[in-house]
Amino acid sequence: MSNLLEGIQSAADLHKMSLPELNQLAAEIRQRLCGLLSIRTAHFASNLGVVELCLAMHSVFDFRNDRLIWDTGHQIYPHKLVTGRNSQFDNIRTRGGLMGYPNPAESEYDLFMTGHAGCSVSTALGLKSGDDLQGQGARRSVAVIGDGAFPSGIVFEALNNAGELNADMLVILNDNKMSICPRVGAVASYLDRLRTNPFYTGIKTEVAKMLNRVPLFGDPAERMLAQIKEGMKAGLHGGMLFEELGFRYIGPIDGHDIGLMRKYLQMVKDLRGPILLHVVTEKGRGYQPAEKDPVYFHTPPAFLDDNGTPKIVSGGGQPAYTNFARDAIGNAMRQNKHVTVMTAAMCQGNKLEPVREEFPDRFFDVGICESHAVAFAAGQAKTGLRPIVTIYSTFLQRSYDQIFQEVALQNLPVVFMLDRAGLTGPDGPTHHGVFDIAYQRAFPNMVVMAPADCNEVSAMLDFAIEHNGPTSIRYPKASAPKLGLETDKIELGKGQIVRWGTDGAILALGAMLEPALRAAERLAKDGIEVAVINPRFVKPLDETLLAKVFHECRFVLTLEESQLMGGFGSAVLELANDRQWDTRHVKRLGLPDVFVGHGERDDLLDDYHLSEDGIVRTCVTLAGALGNAATV
Amino acid sequence: MSNLLEGIQSAADLHKMSLPELNQLAAEIRQRLCGLLSIRTAHFASNLGVVELCLAMHSVFDFRNDRLIWDTGHQIYPHKLVTGRNSQFDNIRTRGGLMGYPNPAESEYDLFMTGHAGCSVSTALGLKSGDDLQGQGARRSVAVIGDGAFPSGIVFEALNNAGELNADMLVILNDNKMSICPRVGAVASYLDRLRTNPFYTGIKTEVAKMLNRVPLFGDPAERMLAQIKEGMKAGLHGGMLFEELGFRYIGPIDGHDIGLMRKYLQMVKDLRGPILLHVVTEKGRGYQPAEKDPVYFHTPPAFLDDNGTPKIVSGGGQPAYTNFARDAIGNAMRQNKHVTVMTAAMCQGNKLEPVREEFPDRFFDVGICESHAVAFAAGQAKTGLRPIVTIYSTFLQRSYDQIFQEVALQNLPVVFMLDRAGLTGPDGPTHHGVFDIAYQRAFPNMVVMAPADCNEVSAMLDFAIEHNGPTSIRYPKASAPKLGLETDKIELGKGQIVRWGTDGAILALGAMLEPALRAAERLAKDGIEVAVINPRFVKPLDETLLAKVFHECRFVLTLEESQLMGGFGSAVLELANDRQWDTRHVKRLGLPDVFVGHGERDDLLDDYHLSEDGIVRTCVTLAGALGNAATV
Repeated sequence: MSNLLEGIQSAADLHKMSLPELNQLAAEIRQRLCGLLSIRTAHFASNLGVVELCLAMHSVFDFRNDRLIWDTGHQIYPHKLVTGRNSQFDNIRTRGGLMGYPNPAESEYDLFMTGHAGCSVSTALGLKSGDDLQGQGARRSVAVIGDGAFPSGIVFEALNNAGELNADMLVILNDNKMSICPRVGAVASYLDRLRTNPFYTGIKTEVAKMLNRVPLFGDPAERMLAQIKEGMKAGLHGGMLFEELGFRYIGPIDGHDIGLMRKYLQMVKDLRGPILLHVVTEKGRGYQPAEKDPVYFHTPPAFLDDNGTPKIVSGGGQPAYTNFARDAIGNAMRQNKHVTVMTAAMCQGNKLEPVREEFPDRFFDVGICESHAVAFAAGQAKTGLRPIVTIYSTFLQRSYDQIFQEVALQNLPVVFMLDRAGLTGPDGPTHHGVFDIAYQRAFPNMVVMAPADCNEVSAMLDFAIEHNGPTSIRYPKASAPKLGLETDKIELGKGQIVRWGTDGAILALGAMLEPALRAAERLAKDGIEVAVINPRFVKPLDETLLAKVFHECRFVLTLEESQLMGGFGSAVLELANDRQWDTRHVKRLGLPDVFVGHGERDDLLDDYHLSEDGIVRTCVTLAGALGNAATV
Repeated sequence: MSNLLEGIQSAADLHKMSLPELNQLAAEIRQRLCGLLSIRTAHFASNLGVVELCLAMHSVFDFRNDRLIWDTGHQIYPHKLVTGRNSQFDNIRTRGGLMGYPNPAESEYDLFMTGHAGCSVSTALGLKSGDDLQGQGARRSVAVIGDGAFPSGIVFEALNNAGELNADMLVILNDNKMSICPRVGAVASYLDRLRTNPFYTGIKTEVAKMLNRVPLFGDPAERMLAQIKEGMKAGLHGGMLFEELGFRYIGPIDGHDIGLMRKYLQMVKDLRGPILLHVVTEKGRGYQPAEKDPVYFHTPPAFLDDNGTPKIVSGGGQPAYTNFARDAIGNAMRQNKHVTVMTAAMCQGNKLEPVREEFPDRFFDVGICESHAVAFAAGQAKTGLRPIVTIYSTFLQRSYDQIFQEVALQNLPVVFMLDRAGLTGPDGPTHHGVFDIAYQRAFPNMVVMAPADCNEVSAMLDFAIEHNGPTSIRYPKASAPKLGLETDKIELGKGQIVRWGTDGAILALGAMLEPALRAAERLAKDGIEVAVINPRFVKPLDETLLAKVFHECRFVLTLEESQLMGGFGSAVLELANDRQWDTRHVKRLGLPDVFVGHGERDDLLDDYHLSEDGIVRTCVTLAGALGNAATV
């Protein structure tokens, strides 16, 4: 049998395929996905789950013209394979290769670069509205959203609006009974009930006919009967939650049966008004270990054998910041019964399973609902608890307004632990956590910290829990070095001189300290003695320490794994300006005003001189150029 | 009959009151509210609507111990009157007087300072969770939320979580059939249906009994019957939307009948699990003109007579920026059929009614759903439209993540018009729009502008609509002067020299230009000749112009109605640092790192030297102190 996948130039090719061919294609795609996973870490279980759904959609719709949004976007691989990108697939998630999320720069089939969950219904509605207004009403609009993303507030906002506009759009709820972690929340329970309520088309039709024969009278009895009639309809076809919002609910149907899905998609594609099609799929489908443990297989490390055994067994290297953060949280909870912890479906990403096991009463997974997580934590803090909100830097952006109103404005002691603060590597621009310094330090009352090594993670958390106001601790997706820093207690707004020298000073925020120290050693060999400072605090800054550095060192270099606009270096400039210090000998290194692409973190950091080599180069240049400049 | 209101020291006094006394108190509170409105602009219709609800709650619960959150918070006046603040009430919304929103600094009865909509269910759930964990489970937790705020995404997130946790909490849905503007959305229609479905307790009980006698069989027929049974229950008591989310739905009941509400509150206050009590009230209740026009009477100007005739008829003064923005939007829509406009329930606040009338197809009010508004606009922009998102600066914070992912990352031409950017005066810290510069300029692709007078509003909008990427235009809640600026076309990243002088230069952003020009005139009389620059763009900055100013003028003063941290002045420092310009002669004026309180805008600006006088004082000091400093 010839390989069908290799012959596909465009998804339009799927229109001509027979059902057996589509089924064969599904098998080939699964094989391709498993092949990739023996090479590198990538999203896996979610992609195995949508193979048939993807093929059914592309064989019924024409998404060169119709509109398709994959919510969250990590389940995009089968879509990429059938939209002309099979030959580039081996390089996915590598620098210069395909992105692991939809990317309009790669294909006309990708409309939005997504990565954060929940916006697909809004954008699909916007696409429909825009097409309608421009006489393009024949273009159909489809959003595919998982049940994990579904409880995100913005989805509800979009359903509310779509229901009112009565837009001709299709929302496909891809229900795999999972978020990235096991699914939580009342909506999840609701979907469980729907799934046990099979869609008996035949019976429904019969009963509906019968109901239509019930006579209606003109008084209270009429209302009573009308209510019962509506109620019976509701009980019959389920999905009242969606029906109440103006959507026509259809399902649940088997999301691994291409023929069945094609039938339903053909049926609904030209219906008027908003439709919700409930499709049940299985994460990890077709690969047994992933079916059994879809959480591990969300983004498993490259594996060697059919049991998913990791190719490179971790060990030897220093564990990640995430591990130390998890341990620090566990210790804090053991020592202080007022400490609670919140996650937004990232229990696994934050490696918090042991904490969840040990403290089930004080562990709260609210699902992909970051806005609620923060306001909920604020309520707990008001009662005297010390909630720790552990949300990736980029996803905490969804709580901006709650950090403002519910936390900073009330000056409540909520601790934010921002994992993945910095360049997240292969995930790319939707996941880089590079705005948090700019957005957190602008709020009054906020204290913003970055640990430079593994020991500082717990020391900063201890400080944060004692502090009577909001605090945040940011750390990257990287190994946490052990630098042997003095482990004295963290003091508010106090930085640390790790090494002294007056040829220049490096203010190396958080994880930048390690390469800065290595760079300083190399520079010393060349006779350039630079001070290396661990600022610890972005806010408040250590004014005394900065004054010393500005006055005694011939240049000042700030390093941050963060956007330069409004970042740490910017904060240093503000303080210097307030004190009328000269800033001509200051150089800021960080991320420029662009969306940084995907690639290995080390490579990306090197691009922006945030590596040992880059720091050495920069210091040599500064020492040369500024050698004769006046200090203040 | 003695005045009951004057005798109330604490809400606990209400526990002893009889129903007739509570009714009398309600009448007295209404009178007090009407009295206030003859003095000054304040929230009105919403407060008249909750008088009875407020009294019923305080007479049944004890909110020194129980927990109460008023969502959005502008309906807090009756609550303030019965919680010991009657004597201070005349000074509400004035500097040093009571705040127009809940304020924990004023009373133990106010737990959170609210102002943005939708977070009450989350915080009330957090309070309950915190109390439970600390052995305080007897404390009850109540959130009161209007139907306007209800479709906010975070409410759905909170219901989803509360349903799962099965928390003992009460959500009171205050349904007045209004947002601030007439209500929109599918949830609104749903509530309309619920309201026409009276709550026949008697009938319900009877039918429920009957249903419980229906025998259940052990095969498909069983399921069928079970479904019909559930369906009948649903049809009977309505509220399935909430029931599906794990809430027990009760209502709707009359929110102006204190006795009835007390009965229900007594009944539900010790029930287990989450309860939603649907209360129907009338905005403006008891004051006929407000009942007829609750939109106008949301925050009416101080009025003279019983018809709500404004005391001070506007006219004479220059219209507000809001008016010019509205006209500019209307013109843009007339000239270009690709222009659409989105509002999040602020049609009236943005004075957009004429635009809505003229272009009903291109006008979208999505309700208080700012996150959706932005993602929806992004979808439209992708199809080739040019959506204008008009949201107050402070409320646009709720769209931070959508501005990031759906707009800036995709580089889509969405135009943000940020009204109320700056100090909003009597509303205070929840409403001041002072973070937008910091949060918008950090995003790549964003173009950030601020018009200095009425003509620049439309000129900048014309520019924005032509620009192939995201843009924002910020302007304050203030009159827009007519400065006679050159009306040449706005060019990307080009500022304007309005006046020249070399003793110093004032970079006066947006509305700061007018007082800066007046200050420059006064300074000239004293022999100090300062340049006055209209930067127009916060991003990108006009580098050529700034280079000239930095090199030729003896000092540089930046002015912005915005937080200094990460603000416009900070952007100027960053550029200067990148170019190694000396910044010792730079002074930044703006808002410091505190939450600025409420008061008249002019008074608040003067506090921070952002008035004509303050600018003159600052320039005199700078001219003196820096007179001998070297320029670069």
